[in-house]
Amino acid sequence: MLSDDTRFPVEPWQLRETSLDLEVLGRSESLFALSNGHLGLRANLDEGEPYALPGTYLNSFVEERPLPYAEAGYGYPEIGQSIIDVTNGKVIRLLVDDEPFDVRYGELLEHERTLDLRAGTLTRVARWRSPAEKKICVRSTRLVSLVHRSVAAIEYIVEAVDEFTLVTVQSELVANEDQPEPSADPRVAAVLRRPLESVEHDGSGREAVLVHRTRASNLTMAAAMDHLIEVPGRVEVSTETSPDLARTTVICGLRPGQRLRIVKFLAYGWSSLRSRPALRSQIAAAISAARYTGWEGLVEQQRGYLDDFWDSADVEVEGDPDLQQAVRFGLFHVLQAGARAERRAIPGKGLTGTGYDGHAFWDTEGFVLPVLTYTAPDAAADALRWRASTLELAKQRAAELDLTGAAFPWRTIRGEECSAYWPAGTAAWHINAAVAMAFERYRLVTGDDSLENECGVAVLVETARLWNSLGHHDRHGVWHLDGVTGPDEYTAVVNDNVFTNLMAAHNLKVAAAACERHPRTAESLGVTDGEIAGWRAAAEAVCIPFDDELGVHEQSAGFTRLREWDFNGGRDYPLLLHQPYVRLYPSQVIKQADLVLAMHWLGHHFTDEQKARNVDYYEQRTTRDSSLSACTQAVMCAEVGHLELAHAYATEAALIDLRDLHRNTSDGLHMASLAGAWTALVDGFGGLRDDENTVSFKPALPERISRLVFRLRWRGFRLTVDIDHETTTYTLRDGPDGRVRIRHCGQDLELTTAEPVTVPVEARVPLLPRPTQPPGRTPIFLRD
Amino acid sequence: MLSDDTRFPVEPWQLRETSLDLEVLGRSESLFALSNGHLGLRANLDEGEPYALPGTYLNSFVEERPLPYAEAGYGYPEIGQSIIDVTNGKVIRLLVDDEPFDVRYGELLEHERTLDLRAGTLTRVARWRSPAEKKICVRSTRLVSLVHRSVAAIEYIVEAVDEFTLVTVQSELVANEDQPEPSADPRVAAVLRRPLESVEHDGSGREAVLVHRTRASNLTMAAAMDHLIEVPGRVEVSTETSPDLARTTVICGLRPGQRLRIVKFLAYGWSSLRSRPALRSQIAAAISAARYTGWEGLVEQQRGYLDDFWDSADVEVEGDPDLQQAVRFGLFHVLQAGARAERRAIPGKGLTGTGYDGHAFWDTEGFVLPVLTYTAPDAAADALRWRASTLELAKQRAAELDLTGAAFPWRTIRGEECSAYWPAGTAAWHINAAVAMAFERYRLVTGDDSLENECGVAVLVETARLWNSLGHHDRHGVWHLDGVTGPDEYTAVVNDNVFTNLMAAHNLKVAAAACERHPRTAESLGVTDGEIAGWRAAAEAVCIPFDDELGVHEQSAGFTRLREWDFNGGRDYPLLLHQPYVRLYPSQVIKQADLVLAMHWLGHHFTDEQKARNVDYYEQRTTRDSSLSACTQAVMCAEVGHLELAHAYATEAALIDLRDLHRNTSDGLHMASLAGAWTALVDGFGGLRDDENTVSFKPALPERISRLVFRLRWRGFRLTVDIDHETTTYTLRDGPDGRVRIRHCGQDLELTTAEPVTVPVEARVPLLPRPTQPPGRTPIFLRD
Repeated sequence: MLSDDTRFPVEPWQLRETSLDLEVLGRSESLFALSNGHLGLRANLDEGEPYALPGTYLNSFVEERPLPYAEAGYGYPEIGQSIIDVTNGKVIRLLVDDEPFDVRYGELLEHERTLDLRAGTLTRVARWRSPAEKKICVRSTRLVSLVHRSVAAIEYIVEAVDEFTLVTVQSELVANEDQPEPSADPRVAAVLRRPLESVEHDGSGREAVLVHRTRASNLTMAAAMDHLIEVPGRVEVSTETSPDLARTTVICGLRPGQRLRIVKFLAYGWSSLRSRPALRSQIAAAISAARYTGWEGLVEQQRGYLDDFWDSADVEVEGDPDLQQAVRFGLFHVLQAGARAERRAIPGKGLTGTGYDGHAFWDTEGFVLPVLTYTAPDAAADALRWRASTLELAKQRAAELDLTGAAFPWRTIRGEECSAYWPAGTAAWHINAAVAMAFERYRLVTGDDSLENECGVAVLVETARLWNSLGHHDRHGVWHLDGVTGPDEYTAVVNDNVFTNLMAAHNLKVAAAACERHPRTAESLGVTDGEIAGWRAAAEAVCIPFDDELGVHEQSAGFTRLREWDFNGGRDYPLLLHQPYVRLYPSQVIKQADLVLAMHWLGHHFTDEQKARNVDYYEQRTTRDSSLSACTQAVMCAEVGHLELAHAYATEAALIDLRDLHRNTSDGLHMASLAGAWTALVDGFGGLRDDENTVSFKPALPERISRLVFRLRWRGFRLTVDIDHETTTYTLRDGPDGRVRIRHCGQDLELTTAEPVTVPVEARVPLLPRPTQPPGRTPIFLRD
Repeated sequence: MLSDDTRFPVEPWQLRETSLDLEVLGRSESLFALSNGHLGLRANLDEGEPYALPGTYLNSFVEERPLPYAEAGYGYPEIGQSIIDVTNGKVIRLLVDDEPFDVRYGELLEHERTLDLRAGTLTRVARWRSPAEKKICVRSTRLVSLVHRSVAAIEYIVEAVDEFTLVTVQSELVANEDQPEPSADPRVAAVLRRPLESVEHDGSGREAVLVHRTRASNLTMAAAMDHLIEVPGRVEVSTETSPDLARTTVICGLRPGQRLRIVKFLAYGWSSLRSRPALRSQIAAAISAARYTGWEGLVEQQRGYLDDFWDSADVEVEGDPDLQQAVRFGLFHVLQAGARAERRAIPGKGLTGTGYDGHAFWDTEGFVLPVLTYTAPDAAADALRWRASTLELAKQRAAELDLTGAAFPWRTIRGEECSAYWPAGTAAWHINAAVAMAFERYRLVTGDDSLENECGVAVLVETARLWNSLGHHDRHGVWHLDGVTGPDEYTAVVNDNVFTNLMAAHNLKVAAAACERHPRTAESLGVTDGEIAGWRAAAEAVCIPFDDELGVHEQSAGFTRLREWDFNGGRDYPLLLHQPYVRLYPSQVIKQADLVLAMHWLGHHFTDEQKARNVDYYEQRTTRDSSLSACTQAVMCAEVGHLELAHAYATEAALIDLRDLHRNTSDGLHMASLAGAWTALVDGFGGLRDDENTVSFKPALPERISRLVFRLRWRGFRLTVDIDHETTTYTLRDGPDGRVRIRHCGQDLELTTAEPVTVPVEARVPLLPRPTQPPGRTPIFLRD
């Protein structure tokens, strides 16, 4: 077992923490976070403190702040957006005979938390002896409903253990919680102090509501709570409210073995448009629905939702329990991030923390949506609709930059560009092609082009126009994209980045094809045949720099001629915290897969030998200082036959947060890397590709994994792929007409729902020996 | 006459303003500013207001402020430095029978100001009728002493004109003056509000002193005033002080024709180290010396100093009175900026305004020092000593960037890097080579290597080490500098910028030679023979990108393949205020001479044909959005035979501030462009070059200039070069041994002090037709 941490036993369907370590509280708050994509609750303790980062988030409920520049420049975004910690409804304080239950005092006899990946609940059991020697047992179970997107609920049970105990429970809504000091690390959110202004507070009996507004962004939110209370004997319940606090107090006496059970229903809503009464009515309705459904009903619906998800999304990894647990943990959190986002962004850290200010990047379309498209396509469609809803802003941004078409923001929450460092922001135009590719993949995988017609064509056309205005043909007719930043942020503002060029060409081609599929939509966008011909000509003539001497592609023009990085001098990782960009950019040092990512996403542009040589070359220069790298390295190392190395990378991607490999899990989980764990297994060892207008597989397992089974959706079918070291079995479980064609190891294969098909797996023989990595960056999970 | 502004008559030895236009007050405040390099006074009106920008500056007396970054990065400077408006001693308020003399009220019957370039004084005559119909005449004369560097003085004369007038004069020292609102233009200084904290104030009788300290930078300054007062009849004089104000009040009655004459002596001092008593004593001594010298003495010394300067620096331009006036105006201000800077920086705007925060750039060594080296070499030596005094800071900066040697700051006042935008700051490494070239030129021109031994070798060695650690040899042995920004700030972070590469190679070679001249100094710096050999090998192998198809040099690798700029779409100049860097950088659009500057400074690396073709190519793509461009374009257009175009550029460089061509003269004068006027004439039409270890001339005049005479110092001699359309006469006026060798039109020429030598001028035949410029950027002074 790889685990170095017995606090988290390796179990297939849950994450369990067997003791409470205050040193790593922030990490647990993120790992055990609950979310449905609309509402997110960090796993802060019920009693509110201690905490590392208190966190309750509503998707896209942001505050704005000015972006400062010591030296301004034309086109720099002036307003930033930050996700804020909204009214905390998780707080349930407990007094044991007047002594507050606080894990820092008295004695914590037992503390266990369990995130159940099939139930979708977080359960906590705490046995505590107060400083006055009273023993109590607290059991709480929390859920953020995947069915009722505005609703969360907590079942809270206190039991007296040895003697009669007077129990006071204060169940609260708390706005404007104190925040920890910001860190010097630029990746951590700008903490906004007291961002909420009280609009209204109201409560009585067992329920209360707080309404607040943000100062600058002028958004309004409401949070409400209601309670069911069960206890033998007399109980007193009262509720009081003030601008930033609502408190329901429950007082009762418990004899040994007696229990107080409280179910707290929470409802959240926000709007930039709707009136305060409308918002109040909305959350009143949500609270009513929650009460009507009841705790048991919410728990049952939650499990039903997840049963359906796992049925078409589960990945089984036999022989590797760590990876088994981690891939399910990752899928669960990816689902939580996207399930009910519903035309809001899926941020880089979901709703699990304030890292990166809560911004969404190309991570969404590039890394998260491929997984959701195959496992929860409706969530993928909603995420794409969110992106399309920002098209007008993207067109304005392009116009501001004197470009045609649309320039989607490098980082944003509500659609406006919030990146304050253009060389790794605006210049990273490739996000536009990632958006286009995600639309195209959705159409291909679902077989449904209604989304394309609804909003996809417009996105494809406007991104194609962007590329067309960015690029130019040189005097020999070759088409170039200059001054761009590819995925690798250690080599920025370069010419002819292969990844960007191939992605742009792909964008141009799929836009052309979409226009032909939807001629009326295209016409309404003013697309002419000449324009389409121009796109295709550019795509055909795209420059792909190749170093003939070395026999490898240049990540960008001239890359293989740059200075080699002195890894003996500068090897404190991540390098960006120890080395200036002015040194990193002109060196052959790579933050994350870039050329290698091009070979994953658009592999048909490369020969097998090129892939092998490119992997070999770039492996030696890639630091994996980005969380978006290990999964891609896993996929391509698997493709070229370095299966054990691929396995190590897959494990790294999957365990990024469980092991806190980037030492910033406390700011939130790395959704792209968690999604990447699925990709590493499915694209890596399953060999799934979809860049040639169909889905193909080329399975090959590393030694340790004896069997890999994954489920996915393809054109309305549910397909199970069951791989071992000799054979692969494809099972088509259901679907529209019972017959579908896929590719297996380069050959067409027809599947029917009548019976599974079993085919042999080809042995994978690497062309080159296993590559090395920069000093200190050999994957920690690599075994020899 | 080119002048479009009759307020400034074209006169050979003065700048005269014949009326007061409050709309362009800021421009006049800069044009008529007085300075000696240590103390600078903007030409604010005696009575303090109205003003555009109140300005009294002490060289290097700065306040610090944090530099904000919305996205931080390793190695970004955290502290900025800004020149601040110190205690204003220029203020002399006047009350005419209780009505304040204010040009905005009553009637200004006459207002004339004259900057006398030989006297070094600013004279003002104002005839004013008060709202109550009293007429007075005010004559003031101001000087900032070039002889006593801490001293300024004002002679202020009030005359009653028609009837008896009660006159009250308030002569003041005013600290923490109100500042205008900052502009959105990034080139304007960050205005610091109330930067001075009072330390001490004291005054009585006719004198007073104010001592202040800056809050963050913790520098202490003192300003003192004393007065001589002459008036027929009774006069009352009193002085009072408060923390930010000292005021001497003079009251008397004047009958028609009677005059009150006040001489105000001002002394300034500041220190980061010395005690407050020491500072007070220092300025008391300065005031005493000024009083002892007296007004007439100060005036006489000022003229004497300037007579000596003009004797070896004057440029006569027959046939072009505008250029005649402008070149002298420019030389005067360049002298004012550097004369008594004495181991302090020469800022880009001298001490004439707060533009660019008062920072010094490569402008100093690249554009100002070549002029001072030939005309006032002691000032040049002091400026180089200033740079050398910051060597330790530059070594620390290099170490911070993981480089060896020294990295001088792109912008600074006291030596620390203050550039907050690294692509046009840190990446502009070429400043280091400009520093090295300035040391080498000083040695070559003066023939004196004591400065080199004193501090030059260390600077040359540490800059050579910087280049050596920045560059690398590729697998074919070619030496490259990647990720650099050359002079052209519209194309940044590029590989193998020809200018930077040639300058670096020059730096490496002169460092190697200096080490051989000063072996003991070199040894003390740890220089080994192997290190020197490495420098020479790098310099020999330097990459110089050339486009064989087009027959021109590439400004940087791949430049001629980049997209052409769409000047029809984007032609609002300067482009940087209307276009984002992300579009400008990857286009063939140039802010300022870059490759063309390499041909000026290191012309022997280029053939005549290359020069002609390069000028032709780059002229078409250069916007001259920087004030550092026209002078260089003048020089190289002259060299390749486009003499009329060169003349237009020379005029543009010279008139930059007199005509406010960049619309920001109110923030301060453009010292590099004013120096560039000299360079345009001397290097352009005189053909002076010094990049091959001697001085050479290749004269050729444009049609309009019938005769050009310039004076300069060469190895202790005073040399006069007298050029007309047929001949050139070289006159060696005095010097160490009466004999020197120069080059004229490629031939050696021996000069003696015995008699002038007259030689013919070669006709200049251009290889190519006169080039065009980007739309809207044909020089406005070009005549056909």
